[in-house]
Amino acid sequence: MAEAAAEVRDRVQDSFERQGLMEHLGARISYIGPGEVRIVLPSRPEVTQQHGYFHAGATSSIADSAGGYAAFTLFPAGTSVLTVEFKINLLAPAEGDHLEAVGTVIKPGRTLTICRLEVFGVTREHRTLVAAGQQTLIQVEARPER
Amino acid sequence: MAEAAAEVRDRVQDSFERQGLMEHLGARISYIGPGEVRIVLPSRPEVTQQHGYFHAGATSSIADSAGGYAAFTLFPAGTSVLTVEFKINLLAPAEGDHLEAVGTVIKPGRTLTICRLEVFGVTREHRTLVAAGQQTLIQVEARPER
Amino acid sequence: MAEAAAEVRDRVQDSFERQGLMEHLGARISYIGPGEVRIVLPSRPEVTQQHGYFHAGATSSIADSAGGYAAFTLFPAGTSVLTVEFKINLLAPAEGDHLEAVGTVIKPGRTLTICRLEVFGVTREHRTLVAAGQQTLIQVEARPER
Amino acid sequence: MAEAAAEVRDRVQDSFERQGLMEHLGARISYIGPGEVRIVLPSRPEVTQQHGYFHAGATSSIADSAGGYAAFTLFPAGTSVLTVEFKINLLAPAEGDHLEAVGTVIKPGRTLTICRLEVFGVTREHRTLVAAGQQTLIQVEARPER
Repeated sequence: MAEAAAEVRDRVQDSFERQGLMEHLGARISYIGPGEVRIVLPSRPEVTQQHGYFHAGATSSIADSAGGYAAFTLFPAGTSVLTVEFKINLLAPAEGDHLEAVGTVIKPGRTLTICRLEVFGVTREHRTLVAAGQQTLIQVEARPER
Repeated sequence: MAEAAAEVRDRVQDSFERQGLMEHLGARISYIGPGEVRIVLPSRPEVTQQHGYFHAGATSSIADSAGGYAAFTLFPAGTSVLTVEFKINLLAPAEGDHLEAVGTVIKPGRTLTICRLEVFGVTREHRTLVAAGQQTLIQVEARPER
Repeated sequence: MAEAAAEVRDRVQDSFERQGLMEHLGARISYIGPGEVRIVLPSRPEVTQQHGYFHAGATSSIADSAGGYAAFTLFPAGTSVLTVEFKINLLAPAEGDHLEAVGTVIKPGRTLTICRLEVFGVTREHRTLVAAGQQTLIQVEARPER
Repeated sequence: MAEAAAEVRDRVQDSFERQGLMEHLGARISYIGPGEVRIVLPSRPEVTQQHGYFHAGATSSIADSAGGYAAFTLFPAGTSVLTVEFKINLLAPAEGDHLEAVGTVIKPGRTLTICRLEVFGVTREHRTLVAAGQQTLIQVEARPER
Protein backbone atom coordinates (compact mmCIF):
# COMPACT_ATOMS: atom_id res chain seq x y z
CA MET A 1 0.00 0.00 0.00
CA ALA A 2 1.05 3.56 -0.59
CA GLU A 3 2.36 5.55 2.34
CA ALA A 4 0.73 8.76 3.49
CA ALA A 5 2.17 12.09 2.37
CA ALA A 6 5.44 13.08 4.04
CA GLU A 7 3.78 15.95 5.92
CA VAL A 8 1.22 13.56 7.37
CA ARG A 9 3.82 10.94 8.27
CA ASP A 10 5.88 13.58 10.06
CA ARG A 11 2.86 14.85 11.95
CA VAL A 12 1.96 11.33 13.10
CA GLN A 13 5.51 10.39 13.98
CA ASP A 14 6.07 13.61 15.96
CA SER A 15 2.91 13.10 17.96
CA PHE A 16 3.70 9.43 18.55
CA GLU A 17 7.09 10.31 19.96
CA ARG A 18 5.38 12.51 22.52
CA GLN A 19 3.41 9.54 23.84
CA GLY A 20 5.50 8.59 26.84
CA LEU A 21 3.64 5.30 27.12
CA MET A 22 4.57 4.07 23.65
CA GLU A 23 8.27 4.62 24.28
CA HIS A 24 8.01 3.10 27.74
CA LEU A 25 6.40 -0.05 26.31
CA GLY A 26 8.97 -0.21 23.52
CA ALA A 27 6.45 0.32 20.70
CA ARG A 28 7.25 1.88 17.34
CA ILE A 29 5.29 2.79 14.23
CA SER A 30 5.85 0.39 11.35
CA TYR A 31 3.56 1.92 8.72
CA ILE A 32 1.66 5.16 8.13
CA GLY A 33 -0.80 5.11 5.23
CA PRO A 34 -3.86 7.22 4.52
CA GLY A 35 -6.40 5.93 7.02
CA GLU A 36 -4.17 3.13 8.28
CA VAL A 37 -1.40 2.99 10.87
CA ARG A 38 0.53 0.00 12.17
CA ILE A 39 2.41 -0.24 15.46
CA VAL A 40 4.84 -2.96 16.51
CA LEU A 41 5.47 -4.04 20.09
CA PRO A 42 8.35 -6.48 20.70
CA SER A 43 7.95 -9.21 23.29
CA ARG A 44 9.57 -8.41 26.63
CA PRO A 45 8.82 -9.19 30.28
CA GLU A 46 7.71 -5.58 30.85
CA VAL A 47 4.53 -6.03 28.80
CA THR A 48 3.26 -9.38 30.10
CA GLN A 49 0.35 -10.62 32.15
CA GLN A 50 0.59 -13.39 34.74
CA HIS A 51 0.98 -16.30 32.28
CA GLY A 52 3.72 -14.60 30.31
CA TYR A 53 1.54 -13.58 27.36
CA PHE A 54 1.26 -9.95 26.30
CA HIS A 55 -1.06 -8.21 28.77
CA ALA A 56 -4.47 -7.22 27.38
CA GLY A 57 -3.55 -3.69 28.42
CA ALA A 58 -0.44 -3.71 26.25
CA THR A 59 -2.37 -5.17 23.35
CA SER A 60 -5.05 -2.53 23.81
CA SER A 61 -2.57 0.31 24.19
CA ILE A 62 -0.98 -0.23 20.79
CA ALA A 63 -4.37 -0.91 19.21
CA ASP A 64 -5.68 2.37 20.62
CA SER A 65 -2.68 4.32 19.35
CA ALA A 66 -2.81 2.64 15.93
CA GLY A 67 -6.48 3.53 15.51
CA GLY A 68 -6.01 7.05 16.82
CA TYR A 69 -3.21 7.79 14.39
CA ALA A 70 -5.05 6.11 11.52
CA ALA A 71 -7.83 8.67 12.07
CA PHE A 72 -5.25 11.43 12.50
CA THR A 73 -3.80 10.78 9.02
CA LEU A 74 -7.13 11.98 7.60
CA PHE A 75 -7.47 15.05 9.82
CA PRO A 76 -6.50 18.53 8.59
CA ALA A 77 -3.42 20.19 10.07
CA GLY A 78 -4.15 22.14 13.23
CA THR A 79 -6.36 19.47 14.77
CA SER A 80 -5.87 16.82 17.41
CA VAL A 81 -7.38 13.39 17.92
CA LEU A 82 -8.88 11.99 21.12
CA THR A 83 -10.23 8.51 21.76
CA VAL A 84 -13.92 8.58 22.64
CA GLU A 85 -14.17 4.85 23.32
CA PHE A 86 -13.02 1.49 22.08
CA LYS A 87 -14.03 -2.13 22.41
CA ILE A 88 -11.65 -5.02 21.97
CA ASN A 89 -11.96 -8.80 22.01
CA LEU A 90 -8.93 -10.82 23.06
CA LEU A 91 -9.24 -13.73 20.66
CA ALA A 92 -6.25 -15.88 21.53
CA PRO A 93 -3.29 -15.81 23.89
CA ALA A 94 -1.23 -12.85 22.68
CA GLU A 95 2.20 -14.28 22.02
CA GLY A 96 4.93 -14.06 19.41
CA ASP A 97 8.21 -12.29 18.79
CA HIS A 98 6.19 -9.12 18.53
CA LEU A 99 2.64 -7.85 18.23
CA GLU A 100 1.53 -5.73 15.31
CA ALA A 101 -1.53 -3.53 15.80
CA VAL A 102 -3.34 -2.31 12.70
CA GLY A 103 -5.76 0.61 12.93
CA THR A 104 -7.94 1.21 9.87
CA VAL A 105 -10.52 3.93 9.34
CA ILE A 106 -13.86 2.44 8.36
CA LYS A 107 -15.84 5.71 8.52
CA PRO A 108 -14.14 9.10 8.43
CA GLY A 109 -16.05 12.15 9.58
CA ARG A 110 -15.64 15.80 10.44
CA THR A 111 -16.43 15.21 14.09
CA LEU A 112 -16.28 11.46 14.66
CA THR A 113 -14.16 8.84 12.93
CA ILE A 114 -14.61 5.09 13.41
CA CYS A 115 -11.73 2.60 13.15
CA ARG A 116 -11.33 -1.12 13.03
CA LEU A 117 -8.60 -2.43 15.33
CA GLU A 118 -6.68 -5.65 14.75
CA VAL A 119 -3.69 -7.02 16.60
CA PHE A 120 -1.55 -9.87 15.30
CA GLY A 121 0.95 -12.05 17.16
CA VAL A 122 3.88 -12.47 14.83
CA THR A 123 6.67 -15.03 14.73
CA ARG A 124 9.01 -15.90 11.87
CA GLU A 125 6.48 -18.49 10.65
CA HIS A 126 3.09 -17.27 11.81
CA ARG A 127 0.87 -14.21 11.91
CA THR A 128 -2.11 -14.84 14.15
CA LEU A 129 -5.02 -12.51 14.85
CA VAL A 130 -4.98 -12.19 18.65
CA ALA A 131 -7.32 -9.23 19.15
CA ALA A 132 -10.00 -7.37 17.21
CA GLY A 133 -11.94 -4.29 18.08
CA GLN A 134 -13.60 -1.07 17.09
CA GLN A 135 -12.93 2.49 18.15
CA THR A 136 -14.55 5.92 18.04
CA LEU A 137 -12.31 9.00 17.74
CA ILE A 138 -13.13 12.69 17.89
CA GLN A 139 -11.41 15.50 16.03
CA VAL A 140 -10.72 18.51 18.25
CA GLU A 141 -8.85 21.76 17.84
CA ALA A 142 -5.14 21.29 18.22
CA ARG A 143 -3.99 21.24 21.81
CA PRO A 144 -0.46 21.98 22.75
CA GLU A 145 1.55 18.78 22.76
CA ARG A 146 4.11 18.53 25.52
CA MET B 1 -16.12 -2.20 52.72
CA ALA B 2 -14.81 -5.48 54.03
CA GLU B 3 -11.72 -6.93 52.45
CA ALA B 4 -11.68 -10.34 50.82
CA ALA B 5 -10.44 -13.38 52.79
CA ALA B 6 -6.67 -13.49 53.31
CA GLU B 7 -6.33 -16.52 51.03
CA VAL B 8 -8.07 -14.66 48.22
CA ARG B 9 -6.06 -11.50 48.74
CA ASP B 10 -2.84 -13.49 48.61
CA ARG B 11 -3.93 -15.25 45.45
CA VAL B 12 -4.75 -11.95 43.74
CA GLN B 13 -1.63 -10.19 44.95
CA ASP B 14 0.62 -13.07 43.84
CA SER B 15 -0.88 -13.12 40.40
CA PHE B 16 -0.73 -9.34 40.09
CA GLU B 17 2.96 -9.36 40.89
CA ARG B 18 3.52 -11.71 37.96
CA GLN B 19 2.03 -9.14 35.57
CA GLY B 20 5.17 -7.56 34.20
CA LEU B 21 3.13 -4.76 32.69
CA MET B 22 1.66 -3.59 35.99
CA GLU B 23 5.09 -3.27 37.59
CA HIS B 24 6.49 -1.61 34.48
CA LEU B 25 3.71 0.99 34.54
CA GLY B 26 4.16 1.52 38.28
CA ALA B 27 0.69 0.28 39.22
CA ARG B 28 -0.21 -1.32 42.56
CA ILE B 29 -3.31 -2.84 44.09
CA SER B 30 -5.01 -0.56 46.62
CA TYR B 31 -7.97 -2.74 47.61
CA ILE B 32 -9.12 -6.35 47.26
CA GLY B 33 -12.72 -7.02 48.27
CA PRO B 34 -15.10 -9.80 47.30
CA GLY B 35 -16.03 -8.92 43.73
CA GLU B 36 -14.14 -5.63 43.73
CA VAL B 37 -10.50 -4.72 43.14
CA ARG B 38 -8.87 -1.30 42.94
CA ILE B 39 -5.58 -0.43 41.26
CA VAL B 40 -3.65 2.81 41.57
CA LEU B 41 -1.37 4.26 38.90
CA PRO B 42 0.72 7.32 39.84
CA SER B 43 1.25 10.06 37.29
CA ARG B 44 4.59 9.87 35.50
CA PRO B 45 5.87 10.70 32.00
CA GLU B 46 6.10 6.99 31.18
CA VAL B 47 2.30 6.59 31.05
CA THR B 48 1.30 9.66 29.03
CA GLN B 49 -0.16 10.38 25.61
CA GLN B 50 0.88 13.32 23.42
CA HIS B 51 -0.82 16.04 25.48
CA GLY B 52 0.65 14.87 28.76
CA TYR B 53 -2.52 13.19 30.05
CA PHE B 54 -2.56 9.53 31.01
CA HIS B 55 -2.65 7.49 27.78
CA ALA B 56 -5.94 5.69 27.09
CA GLY B 57 -3.85 2.52 26.98
CA ALA B 58 -2.58 3.08 30.53
CA THR B 59 -6.08 3.88 31.73
CA SER B 60 -7.38 0.77 30.03
CA SER B 61 -4.57 -1.44 31.29
CA ILE B 62 -5.31 -0.81 34.96
CA ALA B 63 -9.06 -0.98 34.31
CA ASP B 64 -8.61 -4.36 32.63
CA SER B 65 -6.49 -5.70 35.50
CA ALA B 66 -8.88 -4.33 38.15
CA GLY B 67 -11.85 -6.02 36.49
CA GLY B 68 -9.97 -9.26 35.90
CA TYR B 69 -8.94 -9.53 39.54
CA ALA B 70 -12.39 -8.49 40.75
CA ALA B 71 -13.72 -11.55 38.92
CA PHE B 72 -10.83 -13.66 40.20
CA THR B 73 -11.76 -12.94 43.84
CA LEU B 74 -14.95 -14.94 43.24
CA PHE B 75 -13.32 -17.84 41.42
CA PRO B 76 -12.46 -21.09 43.20
CA ALA B 77 -8.82 -21.96 43.84
CA GLY B 78 -7.22 -23.81 40.94
CA THR B 79 -8.69 -21.57 38.27
CA SER B 80 -7.42 -18.70 36.17
CA VAL B 81 -9.09 -15.67 34.67
CA LEU B 82 -8.77 -14.41 31.09
CA THR B 83 -10.26 -11.27 29.57
CA VAL B 84 -12.71 -12.09 26.77
CA GLU B 85 -13.34 -8.45 25.82
CA PHE B 86 -13.85 -5.04 27.26
CA LYS B 87 -15.26 -1.70 26.17
CA ILE B 88 -14.23 1.60 27.68
CA ASN B 89 -15.28 5.22 27.22
CA LEU B 90 -12.71 7.91 27.92
CA LEU B 91 -14.93 10.53 29.54
CA ALA B 92 -12.52 13.33 30.34
CA PRO B 93 -8.82 14.08 30.06
CA ALA B 94 -7.21 11.56 32.42
CA GLU B 95 -5.15 13.67 34.79
CA GLY B 96 -4.39 13.84 38.49
CA ASP B 97 -1.72 12.79 40.96
CA HIS B 98 -2.78 9.25 40.25
CA LEU B 99 -5.51 7.22 38.60
CA GLU B 100 -7.58 4.71 40.53
CA ALA B 101 -9.26 1.94 38.55
CA VAL B 102 -12.19 0.15 40.18
CA GLY B 103 -13.35 -3.20 38.85
CA THR B 104 -16.68 -4.47 40.18
CA VAL B 105 -18.44 -7.73 39.36
CA ILE B 106 -21.98 -7.07 38.20
CA LYS B 107 -22.77 -10.66 37.18
CA PRO B 108 -20.72 -13.60 38.43
CA GLY B 109 -20.94 -16.92 36.62
CA ARG B 110 -19.32 -20.32 36.40
CA THR B 111 -18.04 -19.68 32.90
CA LEU B 112 -18.42 -15.95 32.24
CA THR B 113 -18.27 -13.05 34.68
CA ILE B 114 -19.18 -9.46 33.79
CA CYS B 115 -17.56 -6.44 35.44
CA ARG B 116 -18.12 -2.73 35.51
CA LEU B 117 -14.94 -0.70 35.06
CA GLU B 118 -14.45 2.82 36.39
CA VAL B 119 -11.30 4.92 36.46
CA PHE B 120 -10.95 8.08 38.53
CA GLY B 121 -8.40 10.88 38.24
CA VAL B 122 -7.44 11.77 41.79
CA THR B 123 -5.82 14.85 43.27
CA ARG B 124 -5.76 16.01 46.90
CA GLU B 125 -9.02 17.87 46.31
CA HIS B 126 -10.81 16.06 43.52
CA ARG B 127 -11.85 12.61 42.40
CA THR B 128 -13.13 12.74 38.82
CA LEU B 129 -14.55 9.87 36.78
CA VAL B 130 -12.31 9.81 33.69
CA ALA B 131 -13.25 6.46 32.16
CA ALA B 132 -16.08 3.94 32.39
CA GLY B 133 -16.47 0.57 30.79
CA GLN B 134 -17.65 -2.99 30.89
CA GLN B 135 -15.75 -6.25 30.64
CA THR B 136 -16.37 -9.95 30.04
CA LEU B 137 -14.06 -12.48 31.75
CA ILE B 138 -13.83 -16.23 31.43
CA GLN B 139 -12.87 -18.73 34.11
CA VAL B 140 -10.44 -21.35 32.88
CA GLU B 141 -8.46 -24.14 34.48
CA ALA B 142 -5.39 -22.84 36.22
CA ARG B 143 -2.48 -22.30 33.92
CA PRO B 144 1.03 -22.19 35.19
CA GLU B 145 1.93 -18.61 36.06
CA ARG B 146 5.46 -17.63 35.21
CA MET C 1 -36.94 10.57 42.16
CA ALA C 2 -38.20 13.85 40.82
CA GLU C 3 -39.56 13.94 37.30
CA ALA C 4 -38.11 16.19 34.62
CA ALA C 5 -39.77 19.53 33.87
CA ALA C 6 -43.07 19.29 32.01
CA GLU C 7 -41.57 20.86 28.87
CA VAL C 8 -38.84 18.23 28.81
CA ARG C 9 -41.24 15.37 29.45
CA ASP C 10 -43.43 16.56 26.60
CA ARG C 11 -40.48 16.85 24.26
CA VAL C 12 -39.33 13.31 25.08
CA GLN C 13 -42.81 11.82 24.89
CA ASP C 14 -43.52 13.51 21.54
CA SER C 15 -40.30 12.22 20.04
CA PHE C 16 -40.84 8.73 21.45
CA GLU C 17 -44.27 8.55 19.85
CA ARG C 18 -42.67 9.19 16.50
CA GLN C 19 -40.49 6.09 16.87
CA GLY C 20 -42.46 3.60 14.84
CA LEU C 21 -40.37 0.76 16.28
CA MET C 22 -41.31 1.47 19.90
CA GLU C 23 -45.02 1.38 19.14
CA HIS C 24 -44.61 -1.70 16.96
CA LEU C 25 -42.82 -3.54 19.80
CA GLY C 26 -45.42 -2.39 22.32
CA ALA C 27 -42.98 -0.32 24.41
CA ARG C 28 -43.93 2.71 26.47
CA ILE C 29 -42.09 5.24 28.61
CA SER C 30 -42.56 4.65 32.34
CA TYR C 31 -40.40 7.47 33.74
CA ILE C 32 -38.73 10.66 32.52
CA GLY C 33 -36.31 12.26 34.99
CA PRO C 34 -33.41 14.63 34.45
CA GLY C 35 -30.74 12.38 32.94
CA GLU C 36 -32.77 9.21 33.35
CA VAL C 37 -35.49 7.59 31.26
CA ARG C 38 -37.22 4.22 31.73
CA ILE C 39 -39.02 2.20 29.08
CA VAL C 40 -41.25 -0.81 29.65
CA LEU C 41 -41.76 -3.63 27.16
CA PRO C 42 -44.45 -6.22 27.98
CA SER C 43 -43.84 -9.87 27.18
CA ARG C 44 -45.47 -11.03 23.95
CA PRO C 45 -44.61 -13.54 21.22
CA GLU C 46 -43.72 -10.70 18.83
CA VAL C 47 -40.54 -9.82 20.75
CA THR C 48 -39.05 -13.27 21.36
CA GLN C 49 -36.03 -15.22 20.20
CA GLN C 50 -36.06 -18.93 19.43
CA HIS C 51 -36.31 -20.16 23.06
CA GLY C 52 -39.18 -17.85 23.90
CA TYR C 53 -37.12 -15.31 25.85
CA PHE C 54 -37.07 -11.66 24.88
CA HIS C 55 -34.82 -11.31 21.81
CA ALA C 56 -31.50 -9.52 22.42
CA GLY C 57 -32.61 -7.12 19.71
CA ALA C 58 -35.76 -6.20 21.63
CA THR C 59 -33.78 -5.82 24.84
CA SER C 60 -31.27 -3.64 23.02
CA SER C 61 -33.92 -1.58 21.27
CA ILE C 62 -35.53 -0.36 24.47
CA ALA C 63 -32.12 0.09 26.12
CA ASP C 64 -31.00 2.23 23.18
CA SER C 65 -34.14 4.38 23.30
CA ALA C 66 -33.97 4.74 27.10
CA GLY C 67 -30.37 5.94 26.92
CA GLY C 68 -31.02 8.21 23.98
CA TYR C 69 -33.92 9.93 25.73
CA ALA C 70 -32.02 10.12 29.01
CA ALA C 71 -29.40 12.18 27.16
CA PHE C 72 -32.14 14.15 25.40
CA THR C 73 -33.61 15.31 28.74
CA LEU C 74 -30.39 17.29 29.26
CA PHE C 75 -30.20 18.77 25.76
CA PRO C 76 -31.41 22.30 25.02
CA ALA C 77 -34.57 22.78 22.96
CA GLY C 78 -33.88 22.85 19.23
CA THR C 79 -31.50 19.89 19.27
CA SER C 80 -31.78 16.24 18.40
CA VAL C 81 -30.03 13.14 19.72
CA LEU C 82 -28.42 10.37 17.67
CA THR C 83 -26.83 7.15 18.91
CA VAL C 84 -23.13 6.97 18.05
CA GLU C 85 -22.63 3.46 19.42
CA PHE C 86 -23.58 1.18 22.25
CA LYS C 87 -22.35 -2.02 23.82
CA ILE C 88 -24.56 -4.40 25.75
CA ASN C 89 -24.01 -7.62 27.68
CA LEU C 90 -26.89 -10.06 27.89
CA LEU C 91 -26.45 -11.27 31.47
CA ALA C 92 -29.28 -13.74 31.89
CA PRO C 93 -32.21 -15.10 29.90
CA ALA C 94 -34.47 -12.08 29.43
CA GLU C 95 -37.81 -13.17 30.80
CA GLY C 96 -40.59 -11.77 32.95
CA ASP C 97 -43.99 -10.16 32.63
CA HIS C 98 -42.18 -7.20 31.15
CA LEU C 99 -38.72 -5.73 30.69
CA GLU C 100 -37.79 -2.33 32.06
CA ALA C 101 -34.86 -0.53 30.44
CA VAL C 102 -33.19 2.23 32.42
CA GLY C 103 -30.96 4.75 30.65
CA THR C 104 -28.87 6.99 32.92
CA VAL C 105 -26.47 9.74 31.90
CA ILE C 106 -23.06 9.19 33.46
CA LYS C 107 -21.29 12.00 31.58
CA PRO C 108 -23.19 14.85 29.93
CA GLY C 109 -21.46 16.96 27.32
CA ARG C 110 -22.10 19.59 24.69
CA THR C 111 -21.19 17.24 21.86
CA LEU C 112 -21.10 13.74 23.33
CA THR C 113 -23.07 12.27 26.21
CA ILE C 114 -22.39 8.85 27.75
CA CYS C 115 -25.11 6.71 29.31
CA ARG C 116 -25.29 3.56 31.36
CA LEU C 117 -27.88 1.08 30.14
CA GLU C 118 -29.60 -1.48 32.35
CA VAL C 119 -32.48 -3.79 31.54
CA PHE C 120 -34.46 -5.68 34.16
CA GLY C 121 -36.77 -8.64 33.75
CA VAL C 122 -39.73 -7.98 36.03
CA THR C 123 -42.36 -10.28 37.50
CA ARG C 124 -44.68 -9.69 40.44
CA GLU C 125 -42.02 -11.09 42.78
CA HIS C 126 -38.68 -10.45 41.09
CA ARG C 127 -36.67 -7.75 39.38
CA THR C 128 -33.59 -9.29 37.73
CA LEU C 129 -30.84 -7.48 35.87
CA VAL C 130 -30.83 -9.18 32.45
CA ALA C 131 -28.67 -6.78 30.44
CA ALA C 132 -26.15 -4.01 31.08
CA GLY C 133 -24.38 -1.73 28.70
CA GLN C 134 -22.95 1.63 27.83
CA GLN C 135 -23.82 4.07 25.08
CA THR C 136 -22.41 7.16 23.36
CA LEU C 137 -24.85 9.78 22.06
CA ILE C 138 -24.27 12.90 19.99
CA GLN C 139 -26.20 16.16 20.14
CA VAL C 140 -27.03 17.54 16.71
CA GLU C 141 -29.11 20.40 15.41
CA ALA C 142 -32.78 19.58 15.41
CA ARG C 143 -33.88 17.63 12.39
CA PRO C 144 -37.46 17.55 11.27
CA GLU C 145 -39.22 14.65 12.96
CA ARG C 146 -41.71 12.87 10.77
CA MET D 1 -19.77 -17.78 -2.00
CA ALA D 2 -20.86 -21.33 -1.43
CA GLU D 3 -23.88 -21.91 0.74
CA ALA D 4 -23.74 -23.96 3.92
CA ALA D 5 -24.76 -27.63 3.84
CA ALA D 6 -28.50 -28.22 3.52
CA GLU D 7 -28.70 -29.64 7.05
CA VAL D 8 -27.11 -26.48 8.44
CA ARG D 9 -29.30 -24.18 6.39
CA ASP D 10 -32.40 -26.02 7.60
CA ARG D 11 -31.26 -25.80 11.20
CA VAL D 12 -30.65 -22.05 10.92
CA GLN D 13 -33.88 -21.38 9.03
CA ASP D 14 -35.95 -23.40 11.51
CA SER D 15 -34.49 -21.55 14.45
CA PHE D 16 -34.89 -18.17 12.75
CA GLU D 17 -38.56 -18.85 12.14
CA ARG D 18 -39.02 -19.36 15.87
CA GLN D 19 -37.74 -15.83 16.56
CA GLY D 20 -41.00 -13.96 16.97
CA LEU D 21 -39.14 -10.65 16.75
CA MET D 22 -37.70 -11.30 13.30
CA GLU D 23 -41.12 -12.08 11.83
CA HIS D 24 -42.67 -9.13 13.64
CA LEU D 25 -40.06 -6.77 12.18
CA GLY D 26 -40.48 -8.28 8.72
CA ALA D 27 -36.91 -9.62 8.50
CA ARG D 28 -35.86 -12.65 6.46
CA ILE D 29 -32.64 -14.57 5.91
CA SER D 30 -31.06 -13.84 2.51
CA TYR D 31 -27.94 -16.03 2.76
CA ILE D 32 -26.59 -18.85 4.91
CA GLY D 33 -22.94 -19.72 4.34
CA PRO D 34 -20.39 -21.43 6.56
CA GLY D 35 -19.59 -18.77 9.15
CA GLU D 36 -21.67 -16.09 7.46
CA VAL D 37 -25.38 -15.23 7.56
CA ARG D 38 -27.21 -12.31 5.98
CA ILE D 39 -30.58 -10.91 7.02
CA VAL D 40 -32.70 -8.42 5.09
CA LEU D 41 -35.12 -5.94 6.67
CA PRO D 42 -37.39 -3.96 4.32
CA SER D 43 -38.13 -0.33 5.09
CA ARG D 44 -41.48 0.23 6.78
CA PRO D 45 -42.88 2.68 9.34
CA GLU D 46 -42.88 -0.06 11.99
CA VAL D 47 -39.06 -0.10 12.24
CA THR D 48 -38.28 3.63 12.34
CA GLN D 49 -36.94 6.10 14.84
CA GLN D 50 -38.21 9.68 15.20
CA HIS D 51 -36.64 11.05 12.00
CA GLY D 52 -37.96 8.25 9.84
CA TYR D 53 -34.68 6.35 9.56
CA PHE D 54 -34.39 2.74 10.63
CA HIS D 55 -34.22 2.69 14.46
CA ALA D 56 -30.84 1.71 15.92
CA GLY D 57 -32.72 -1.06 17.70
CA ALA D 58 -33.97 -2.51 14.41
CA THR D 59 -30.51 -2.24 12.89
CA SER D 60 -29.04 -3.94 15.95
CA SER D 61 -31.69 -6.63 16.06
CA ILE D 62 -30.93 -7.96 12.59
CA ALA D 63 -27.19 -7.54 13.17
CA ASP D 64 -27.46 -9.58 16.37
CA SER D 65 -29.43 -12.34 14.66
CA ALA D 66 -27.09 -12.38 11.65
CA GLY D 67 -24.05 -12.81 13.89
CA GLY D 68 -25.73 -15.36 16.11
CA TYR D 69 -26.69 -17.54 13.17
CA ALA D 70 -23.30 -17.09 11.52
CA ALA D 71 -21.80 -18.65 14.66
CA PHE D 72 -24.53 -21.29 14.72
CA THR D 73 -23.59 -22.51 11.22
CA LEU D 74 -20.30 -23.70 12.71
CA PHE D 75 -21.77 -25.34 15.82
CA PRO D 76 -22.40 -29.08 15.99
CA ALA D 77 -25.97 -30.37 15.97
CA GLY D 78 -27.50 -30.55 19.43
CA THR D 79 -26.21 -27.15 20.53
CA SER D 80 -27.70 -23.71 20.84
CA VAL D 81 -26.24 -20.23 20.51
CA LEU D 82 -26.69 -17.32 22.91
CA THR D 83 -25.43 -13.75 22.55
CA VAL D 84 -22.98 -12.84 25.32
CA GLU D 85 -22.59 -9.23 24.22
CA PHE D 86 -22.29 -7.02 21.21
CA LYS D 87 -21.09 -3.53 20.37
CA ILE D 88 -22.30 -1.56 17.40
CA ASN D 89 -21.49 1.83 15.88
CA LEU D 90 -24.20 3.58 13.92
CA LEU D 91 -22.12 5.11 11.13
CA ALA D 92 -24.69 6.93 9.04
CA PRO D 93 -28.45 7.47 8.98
CA ALA D 94 -29.86 4.01 8.30
CA GLU D 95 -32.01 4.43 5.24
CA GLY D 96 -32.73 2.63 1.99
CA ASP D 97 -35.27 0.28 0.47
CA HIS D 98 -34.01 -2.30 2.90
CA LEU D 99 -31.17 -3.02 5.31
CA GLU D 100 -28.93 -6.02 4.94
CA ALA D 101 -27.10 -7.24 8.04
CA VAL D 102 -24.03 -9.43 7.52
CA GLY D 103 -22.70 -11.52 10.39
CA THR D 104 -19.27 -13.09 9.83
CA VAL D 105 -17.32 -15.33 12.20
CA ILE D 106 -13.84 -13.95 12.79
CA LYS D 107 -12.86 -16.42 15.52
CA PRO D 108 -14.70 -19.71 16.02
CA GLY D 109 -14.30 -21.57 19.29
CA ARG D 110 -15.69 -24.45 21.27
CA THR D 111 -17.08 -22.16 23.95
CA LEU D 112 -16.94 -18.62 22.56
CA THR D 113 -17.25 -17.43 18.98
CA ILE D 114 -16.57 -13.85 17.85
CA CYS D 115 -18.35 -12.24 14.90
CA ARG D 116 -18.02 -9.09 12.89
CA LEU D 117 -21.32 -7.33 12.28
CA GLU D 118 -22.02 -5.06 9.32
CA VAL D 119 -25.28 -3.49 8.22
CA PHE D 120 -25.81 -1.90 4.82
CA GLY D 121 -28.54 0.46 3.67
CA VAL D 122 -29.50 -0.68 0.19
CA THR D 123 -31.29 1.09 -2.64
CA ARG D 124 -31.38 0.21 -6.33
CA GLU D 125 -28.24 2.31 -6.87
CA HIS D 126 -26.39 2.29 -3.58
CA ARG D 127 -25.14 -0.01 -0.87
CA THR D 128 -23.92 2.04 2.12
CA LEU D 129 -22.36 0.75 5.31
CA VAL D 130 -24.63 2.18 8.03
CA ALA D 131 -23.51 0.18 11.06
CA ALA D 132 -20.52 -1.91 12.12
CA GLY D 133 -19.94 -3.91 15.24
CA GLN D 134 -18.55 -6.94 16.98
CA GLN D 135 -20.25 -9.70 18.93
CA THR D 136 -19.41 -12.49 21.34
CA LEU D 137 -21.51 -15.67 21.25
CA ILE D 138 -21.52 -18.72 23.48
CA GLN D 139 -22.28 -22.31 22.51
CA VAL D 140 -24.57 -24.05 24.98
CA GLU D 141 -26.34 -27.38 25.10
CA ALA D 142 -29.46 -27.37 22.98
CA ARG D 143 -32.45 -25.91 24.74
CA PRO D 144 -35.95 -26.70 23.66
CA GLU D 145 -37.06 -24.16 21.08
CA ARG D 146 -40.66 -23.09 21.37
